[in-house]
Amino acid sequence: MEKVRVEIDGKEYEVEKGTPLGKIFELAGIREAIGGVLEGEIIDLQTPVRKSGKIEPVFVGSKEGLEIMRHSLAHIMAQALKELYGPTKVHLGVGPTTEDGFYYDVEVEGQRITEEDLQRIEEKMREIIARDYPILRRELSREEAIKLFSDLKEKYKIDIIKEIPEDEVISVYEQGDFIDLCKGPHLPSTGKAGAFKLTSISGAYWKGRADQPQLTRIYGIAFWSDKELEERLRFYEEVKKRDHRRLGKELEFFTIDESIGAGLILWLPRGAIYRKVLEDYLREEHLKRGYQLVYTPHIGKSKLWETSGHLECYRQNMYPAMKVDEEEYYVKPMNCPFHIAIYKSRVRSYKELPLKLFELGTVYRYELSGVLHGLLRVRGFTQDDAHIICTPEQVNDVIRETLDFALSTLRDFGFNEFKIYLSTRPEYSIGSDEQWELSQRALKEAIESLGYEYEIDEGGGAFYGPKIDVKVKDALGRMWQLSTIQFDFNLPERFDMTYIGPDNQKHRPYMIHRALLGSIERFTGILLEHYGGLLPLWLSPTQVMIIPVGERHYQYANKVLETLKAEGVRAEVDLRQERMSAKIRDAELKKIPVILVVGDKEIENNAVSVRTKKEGNLGAMELLKFVEWIKEKIRNKE
Amino acid sequence: MEKVRVEIDGKEYEVEKGTPLGKIFELAGIREAIGGVLEGEIIDLQTPVRKSGKIEPVFVGSKEGLEIMRHSLAHIMAQALKELYGPTKVHLGVGPTTEDGFYYDVEVEGQRITEEDLQRIEEKMREIIARDYPILRRELSREEAIKLFSDLKEKYKIDIIKEIPEDEVISVYEQGDFIDLCKGPHLPSTGKAGAFKLTSISGAYWKGRADQPQLTRIYGIAFWSDKELEERLRFYEEVKKRDHRRLGKELEFFTIDESIGAGLILWLPRGAIYRKVLEDYLREEHLKRGYQLVYTPHIGKSKLWETSGHLECYRQNMYPAMKVDEEEYYVKPMNCPFHIAIYKSRVRSYKELPLKLFELGTVYRYELSGVLHGLLRVRGFTQDDAHIICTPEQVNDVIRETLDFALSTLRDFGFNEFKIYLSTRPEYSIGSDEQWELSQRALKEAIESLGYEYEIDEGGGAFYGPKIDVKVKDALGRMWQLSTIQFDFNLPERFDMTYIGPDNQKHRPYMIHRALLGSIERFTGILLEHYGGLLPLWLSPTQVMIIPVGERHYQYANKVLETLKAEGVRAEVDLRQERMSAKIRDAELKKIPVILVVGDKEIENNAVSVRTKKEGNLGAMELLKFVEWIKEKIRNKE
Repeated sequence: MEKVRVEIDGKEYEVEKGTPLGKIFELAGIREAIGGVLEGEIIDLQTPVRKSGKIEPVFVGSKEGLEIMRHSLAHIMAQALKELYGPTKVHLGVGPTTEDGFYYDVEVEGQRITEEDLQRIEEKMREIIARDYPILRRELSREEAIKLFSDLKEKYKIDIIKEIPEDEVISVYEQGDFIDLCKGPHLPSTGKAGAFKLTSISGAYWKGRADQPQLTRIYGIAFWSDKELEERLRFYEEVKKRDHRRLGKELEFFTIDESIGAGLILWLPRGAIYRKVLEDYLREEHLKRGYQLVYTPHIGKSKLWETSGHLECYRQNMYPAMKVDEEEYYVKPMNCPFHIAIYKSRVRSYKELPLKLFELGTVYRYELSGVLHGLLRVRGFTQDDAHIICTPEQVNDVIRETLDFALSTLRDFGFNEFKIYLSTRPEYSIGSDEQWELSQRALKEAIESLGYEYEIDEGGGAFYGPKIDVKVKDALGRMWQLSTIQFDFNLPERFDMTYIGPDNQKHRPYMIHRALLGSIERFTGILLEHYGGLLPLWLSPTQVMIIPVGERHYQYANKVLETLKAEGVRAEVDLRQERMSAKIRDAELKKIPVILVVGDKEIENNAVSVRTKKEGNLGAMELLKFVEWIKEKIRNKE
Repeated sequence: MEKVRVEIDGKEYEVEKGTPLGKIFELAGIREAIGGVLEGEIIDLQTPVRKSGKIEPVFVGSKEGLEIMRHSLAHIMAQALKELYGPTKVHLGVGPTTEDGFYYDVEVEGQRITEEDLQRIEEKMREIIARDYPILRRELSREEAIKLFSDLKEKYKIDIIKEIPEDEVISVYEQGDFIDLCKGPHLPSTGKAGAFKLTSISGAYWKGRADQPQLTRIYGIAFWSDKELEERLRFYEEVKKRDHRRLGKELEFFTIDESIGAGLILWLPRGAIYRKVLEDYLREEHLKRGYQLVYTPHIGKSKLWETSGHLECYRQNMYPAMKVDEEEYYVKPMNCPFHIAIYKSRVRSYKELPLKLFELGTVYRYELSGVLHGLLRVRGFTQDDAHIICTPEQVNDVIRETLDFALSTLRDFGFNEFKIYLSTRPEYSIGSDEQWELSQRALKEAIESLGYEYEIDEGGGAFYGPKIDVKVKDALGRMWQLSTIQFDFNLPERFDMTYIGPDNQKHRPYMIHRALLGSIERFTGILLEHYGGLLPLWLSPTQVMIIPVGERHYQYANKVLETLKAEGVRAEVDLRQERMSAKIRDAELKKIPVILVVGDKEIENNAVSVRTKKEGNLGAMELLKFVEWIKEKIRNKE
């Protein structure tokens, strides 16, 4: 018999190859474990150990144990569905674990599972857990497996079996009369499952392909303790409350109209004012830092996209061609070729470099309709896009300045926690060693000189150059990738970009793509969720709502309005026939950051009573003092 | 014999039908006339008079005479070409008169006529004029005409003959050995021709159709006196000097790149800064006047354009469809359906009206490549587009306010001479009598209440509503149509737009499309030509060029630069190793409106020496005083 040598708690054991982990733990005197980690792989007690190595036991309550428990909950859910809807009516797809739980894709013949069914399914799951079925593993030959799942009418499982490589073991797990094709790991018995909840339902194509049947995906979350589960549920509650799609509608920021097209955003007046403020800010900041504005068309001839390589590598994300005058035109998925055309519109000297071309460029990219999501995933969006063209000597300064610009911009929007990733040369790449070294060094030094931590994604760069990505942490702790600073050794070659050096010779410049916010649409979605709709004062569509106490204060309220407007403050006055308290509540619901109440006393003192969402009731302030106060806050982007 | 009765100088004459006009003039004792106007039609002395009516004689030096003379010059040019290149090598197309001269479309076998040939052709024309050939008219049968022009190898003339209706007389005019198919009128002899010059050459498709051969169009201008001719030549010289395509290149405003596409504008950094100022101004002015900004996508589903009627009536100007997810998408030629979608994104109350939605909306319209012309005729352009949706009661105020807005905007750009046109209900129209009356009255009253003159284009309105067009006069006296205020009774019906009235019932609103400048691209072309590139201070990409006298003044020059930048003035400093006079000349060539020279004396007094293109050398000014001075000028849009 072949042997394997395993090490547990510093001790070595020699056992027969294929001995189940549980048996080995018995030898080692380890109790209560629900599985183990063998060389990085989580396995359960029934898994035959077929290789030597160190084994860490996994217990209830541990992080690795969660993975096992969530996996078993997916089976428990599947069993519950079979008990509820009939064992041969339910056809199982795949049921993996997620970051905080699990899901299973299922087809239930003649039934549409809805959110209302979740409680019933949960109850059945709790029954199965209470029954504390042992969970048993069995290995089968391919023929046995196909026979078994054919009998069970599990057509999707047969699909999976056919794709398992010849040399791989096929295993199934059973609990009670439920049996499922599975590699494991699983709990020893259903009774060991922790706290869980089914959370939502969505559609999912079998194998993720639109030409395959659509299954129902049922999501659950699971933790070891009720406390952790409740925390996560509260997080979801908060995520839901902050859903930018809901806020975007309530605050009248944007709408999507299916008659116009999925993933195409209509910015409503309140969203458009915010967007104007954002765009004005971006343009001013770019001009201040020596960028030059450009505007380019939204369509261009196919030749451009052939030269750029987009038609070759990116076609699936491009809208189809429009044939005009025997030429094919494409709606642009990127601005690069246009900025390059501007660079090339005349001979360039080294004296003009670095040349930094900036555009709020609206691009269109085809995305599968299934992945579209509010502002976060769209088909048309506006990038804060720039291309920096420079000499090798300038690369260091350019990158440092660009990263500094990116972070200071993110800070202006209230993001203060960043994670920076540096992606380096992949196996297949173009460009010289010198280019890669110089660029990667510039990226590293820029991050270090600004005093930031970063992670290196070794070999994670694009084939055409290394890059820095900046992620920010939002109010719910979620990370969002925003800024990118990306070298490109490809397009300068393809478009034969040159500059005349001090030696009067032609040289190839370095080119850097960069976006600070990425897409205005996506950034706005993130911002709305980060702030739960209560945007910072400087970005609020309406900054001040003036509420007169009674009708005899209308005139003064209008005077306050005019004073504020003249100073460039976005103010409104509420002259509806409503009670003051209702007006205050409405202004708060509209997430207007500052509310001014004006009545007799305020008129007498030429004042306003100030109330902000953040600081509460600030009492009366002289009108002109208030103007200075709020202008200062706007200037400081508070 | 049939008779006709004509009246000349208050006297009546009865003559045989078909008597040539010259014979009638002999009867009436009129000498020196070169033709006459019979019932609005200009005829020459040889034209047989076949109807009764009043005849005004036409003499050398008159406006009607110009028409006759220019027509003969076209023949004289054709004759000159035949003499120069061989009578059967030159195939004539059409040779009509123009606003200030004539042209002839010709094909010269085996020859490419260029601008260099014009002088030679002119000389030959002068010879023909000196020969003073009598110009003789003859009428022919269709068969005779076809035989004659077949013999002459005039293939295009045969094309024309075949299109002449059966009942029309076919006539030819001869001078020396030259003969041409022509209705006339012509001079009695070539010697009567006035002052002329051949000005340019272009290509022109036969019958204006791209599937036909391309002919060479040779343009000439002609007047009775050398003085008038020279005036017109100076005007052309000025037009050429102000050509926005040349200025746009010199001032680095824009470029068109054939590899991207004809009629698609790339705004270069200097043009983009100007455009930003223009757009900022437009957005601010619209917000001030209660408009609401929106942003909408550049593509939309075919359903939109079916509902709007564009696919039915406007398809030839639309880019072809892009098929995505079994749906057809079009690049938008107009913003209307998108603004309507925003209006319809929720129920609207009369309390919200008038709702004025404004967008700097970029649209794409297919135009034949032959008509594209710099910024003036393009395929992609950005409209300052708004849709005003209101109740019938609001129409009057809305129109008055809109017209006032249009004119005040045009004035801000330095246009002070307007012509206003009111186009009324055409024969075929939709909409009720009440709608038409109310709208037309509103348009009339708006113009009158603002104290403007206007012309009525009776029946010239679109089928869906009446409109006002505003034309401005530029520095060369040319009129350009800019603003349009257009009622639309069509789209509110097609898109079923409604609002809830005070009666709690649904009502159909009025909708008005309006653009003040029309298209930013075209407006910019006009503006560049109007100002010959020297844009008003507030619109200049660079407002101030600072020129230090010597190197020891660089530091101070930079201080001046920083001071101006901090105040929002767009300034540059010229630190090149060039002489001061060269720097001043360069700044003037770049059309920078204000030049500051700084040397020892200026440093001593903390001053700048100011020189403007408009006011010349203004001497030294204290720096802070200069800042106030220029900011005031910018604010006042001087």
